[in-house]
Amino acid sequence: MYDYDLLVLGSGPSGQKAAIAAAKLGRRVGLVERRDMLGGVCINTGTVPSKTLREAVLYLTGLSQRDLYGSSYRVKDEITVSDLAARTQHVINRQTDVIRHQLARNRVAIITGTGRFADAHSVWIDGDSGRESRITFDKAIIAAGTRPARPDSVDFDDRTIVDSDGVINLQTVPRSMVVVGAGVIGMEYASMFAALGTKVTVVERRERMLDFCDEEVIESLKYHLRDLSVTFRFGEEVASVEKHQTAALCVLKSGKKIVADTVMYSAGRQGQTDGLDLAAAGLSADRRGRIEVDANYRTAVENIYAVGDVIGFPALASTSMEQGRLAAQHACGEPERPMHELQPIGIYTIPEISFVGKTEEELTDSATPFEVGIARYRELARGQIVGDSYGMLKLLVSPQDRRLLGVHVFGTGATEIVHIGQTVMGCGGTVDYLIDTVFNYPTLAEAYKVAALDAANKIRNITRLDR
Amino acid sequence: MYDYDLLVLGSGPSGQKAAIAAAKLGRRVGLVERRDMLGGVCINTGTVPSKTLREAVLYLTGLSQRDLYGSSYRVKDEITVSDLAARTQHVINRQTDVIRHQLARNRVAIITGTGRFADAHSVWIDGDSGRESRITFDKAIIAAGTRPARPDSVDFDDRTIVDSDGVINLQTVPRSMVVVGAGVIGMEYASMFAALGTKVTVVERRERMLDFCDEEVIESLKYHLRDLSVTFRFGEEVASVEKHQTAALCVLKSGKKIVADTVMYSAGRQGQTDGLDLAAAGLSADRRGRIEVDANYRTAVENIYAVGDVIGFPALASTSMEQGRLAAQHACGEPERPMHELQPIGIYTIPEISFVGKTEEELTDSATPFEVGIARYRELARGQIVGDSYGMLKLLVSPQDRRLLGVHVFGTGATEIVHIGQTVMGCGGTVDYLIDTVFNYPTLAEAYKVAALDAANKIRNITRLDR
Repeated sequence: MYDYDLLVLGSGPSGQKAAIAAAKLGRRVGLVERRDMLGGVCINTGTVPSKTLREAVLYLTGLSQRDLYGSSYRVKDEITVSDLAARTQHVINRQTDVIRHQLARNRVAIITGTGRFADAHSVWIDGDSGRESRITFDKAIIAAGTRPARPDSVDFDDRTIVDSDGVINLQTVPRSMVVVGAGVIGMEYASMFAALGTKVTVVERRERMLDFCDEEVIESLKYHLRDLSVTFRFGEEVASVEKHQTAALCVLKSGKKIVADTVMYSAGRQGQTDGLDLAAAGLSADRRGRIEVDANYRTAVENIYAVGDVIGFPALASTSMEQGRLAAQHACGEPERPMHELQPIGIYTIPEISFVGKTEEELTDSATPFEVGIARYRELARGQIVGDSYGMLKLLVSPQDRRLLGVHVFGTGATEIVHIGQTVMGCGGTVDYLIDTVFNYPTLAEAYKVAALDAANKIRNITRLDR
Repeated sequence: MYDYDLLVLGSGPSGQKAAIAAAKLGRRVGLVERRDMLGGVCINTGTVPSKTLREAVLYLTGLSQRDLYGSSYRVKDEITVSDLAARTQHVINRQTDVIRHQLARNRVAIITGTGRFADAHSVWIDGDSGRESRITFDKAIIAAGTRPARPDSVDFDDRTIVDSDGVINLQTVPRSMVVVGAGVIGMEYASMFAALGTKVTVVERRERMLDFCDEEVIESLKYHLRDLSVTFRFGEEVASVEKHQTAALCVLKSGKKIVADTVMYSAGRQGQTDGLDLAAAGLSADRRGRIEVDANYRTAVENIYAVGDVIGFPALASTSMEQGRLAAQHACGEPERPMHELQPIGIYTIPEISFVGKTEEELTDSATPFEVGIARYRELARGQIVGDSYGMLKLLVSPQDRRLLGVHVFGTGATEIVHIGQTVMGCGGTVDYLIDTVFNYPTLAEAYKVAALDAANKIRNITRLDR
């Protein structure tokens, strides 16, 4: 008999949910994680610290309140890293406790150390004490996650030149910063530092950023970030970064030079598979350390699955959790259930962005007619109460069957309220549901009614002429 | 020909939406309102100022952040009424502008003054300049609203003894306060002043409060308010209030005496119909000034409708808006549409409360089986990030068809996220939709998935044994 029915390698969002799902189905489950890394990158250096930092920045700078009070109501004039770090460490500790408790309650055995395949049914565990032990399993789920890619050409020192996991350990709030890479992580940090008063320059190799999002939303984001003194350099590459005593000199291939206290590289992430000895189990990874899986998250080896960031796109905590749960269910022989096709995207820039379904561009490309309904937060009582004059909700509605094709939200609470539209889409409702619904007043959710009425009026006007 | 196809008396939420709906249908619409009261009680003295005040209190006291930072991060040590009022006036002005602009854009004529029926097709307008004019109409909608009921036995002076419309004009934050009446408005203000550090005593004639809400939620609310030093006196009545130089002495019928800087009476509201000369139009009001209507919001006189607080329960801005819209559509001969049966309730206490559908009590009374699924905010990453350790979401699920029977939320964002559950109910989804859905991480919306899994596990455990 194997030591475990299921062994999970990694305790990030996908690993946790995989372990708990299998345990709930009565399996004996082991979960391998390094000491002080319970919860994975998500809890310890990634999502949770960065979102906590963001909340602290919003509160301590009084950013969203300035419209209402003027800057004299700023909570602290000089915001230090320790102000920000206190809150982050507090949340990390609590969230780690919650996870430990959930795992214990579900009788998942936590194995401290790092795993390395011995064969397709066993791993070596390098414990922290230096002792090595061998553990056997029937099925395994690899949820090893990723780490920031660190190009050899860049001389990271974790002080002047940092990667996106290291940025939360900065000792001071830099006066100036270059962010290399305008992906989700890069833009989230660029927003936060800009809000703190750092002069941020974003350098991005491509001509656009976040191009899976609604174009109007991204243009609004750029507008707001420029208003916080962010400079964008699209279509530019960093040629070199010179470290000097008190700052770094960043040279672009175009010849431009930028002086900055800190340079943050946010140029993609690398699967953490190099220490796993995948070959011993008959597996391999691609050059970015990623593992290929089928629709059920199964690898080339029948009893081994992989989930989360280590399998690549979309690499969001939300989808990774669902992958973990589905992989565990499949491994336990439960009936197959595909991932729900509607997957929301949430981006915690300042202001925040969230959407579900299609963009205008995608619909136009596929020659799918749509009508747009828009609500602006500044017309909603709640928008004014929370001091959000720029937020907006955009519905893309089919003029044929009146279903929602896409929901795009920009502004306060975007990542929460997008789920109202997602539910309409997921439960088969139409724009008429939103028109007839009573929403609490004053809420941001009311934006749905305003946008739905806007779309319906436009559709009616077209229908009148087009008979 | 009449001066207007539709004349609306009152510009609160119901009146506004009635006027705009009729205008969108091409009718000539007039809207009668007193100078400086555009938007009605909702915008000027009621909902909007009180919710703005609440937001200011939450921000300036740093209440929700104390868990994270300790009280040293309080934005202002001594919060003055002018700190609070600045924000309120700002929001009132902006919201009034929005309404004025919406009405103008839809070509609704704003008639400044107060209306008084001459007959069933005309009103006298007492303009502010003292001139009187007569305006005729085909249809009319009465949206006159309410004012606080002021019992003759109480000596209101708008400084020591105030009603719920006057409380926003207090000149100082009182050190102590008696709130008479534990209804929605009473409890919202009791929460705010308690958060500001006022010693609040709530006196309520009945043995319970807010008994249309989930009992567990109301008990949590009481617990949290007691933690802010609120004292509850249920089943007690005020016998007299004596005004003294610097305070009031409140004597209860039980003989208890309470000294307080301020006494707020929040003992129901009275329809503002006494100045309308309803009899001239062939109408009458009940002793609380309320007008009776049928399912289409039509009064006893065929061409006259009434909507909003003046027709009584539920007297919420959200439902009133919908009443206005439906009444206008009916008056314009549009096909009848009943009000959506799912009407959410939102209560802006601290913490806030919202629900939709049935309570456990109602389901038990009607012998409808249900299972409970609970999510606690403290187990959600977002709950910890926003410092909400007490929030919870409760789903009541039918074990038979797995539909949601009720959704109850207590805590941060309750009035927003309740709409996700409302949409599942309104679009015919089941608890399985929530289980399979991907939610953004970290959000409070994730509570739905946690609660749905909890309910589904319980249902499965029962089904296993009960075959």
